[in-house]
Amino acid sequence: MLVLVTYDVETSTTDGKRRLREVAKICVNYGQRVQNSVFECLVDPVQFKQLKARLVKVIDEERDSLRFYLLGSKWKRRVEHIGAKPGYDPEGLLLFE
Amino acid sequence: MLVLVTYDVETSTTDGKRRLREVAKICVNYGQRVQNSVFECLVDPVQFKQLKARLVKVIDEERDSLRFYLLGSKWKRRVEHIGAKPGYDPEGLLLFE
Repeated sequence: MLVLVTYDVETSTTDGKRRLREVAKICVNYGQRVQNSVFECLVDPVQFKQLKARLVKVIDEERDSLRFYLLGSKWKRRVEHIGAKPGYDPEGLLLFE
Repeated sequence: MLVLVTYDVETSTTDGKRRLREVAKICVNYGQRVQNSVFECLVDPVQFKQLKARLVKVIDEERDSLRFYLLGSKWKRRVEHIGAKPGYDPEGLLLFE
């Protein structure tokens, strides 16, 4: 299934900047970055649980926000892109729209 | 239906900063800001078309990126939130999770 991960990390402190880097580093292991704070991850339920657990360990729940959108397996018809950067195909191929 | 709008606007120039403000201003009319560059919009197909048309007029398609995720009507079970800021209920009520 495709899970969209979006995050806001409070970066006014050095620790916040470190958290932001950590969050991105974790997400890179699970999916494709499609925007600055938006990743599309093709995961199974076990991987999704793992991803969430790893992110929760890194963020400051008082300051940072994580959102997950479960787009299912028929995600292709749910995504539209306009503008810069190609749309990524999380299944592997880069789609230049 | 719930449409998630995510955007990256290139803000290294004054014009970019203006575009960013414009994009946010348009999105505010259609939904709730849930993160810095993420809006959840409860729209019908006509409103969705309108929203896209307005955004396309503002962005620089060479530099900025817009993504739309169609979460349908059963969106509630597709959204998970962790951390700061309450989850918004686009139907009106604020949900403090």
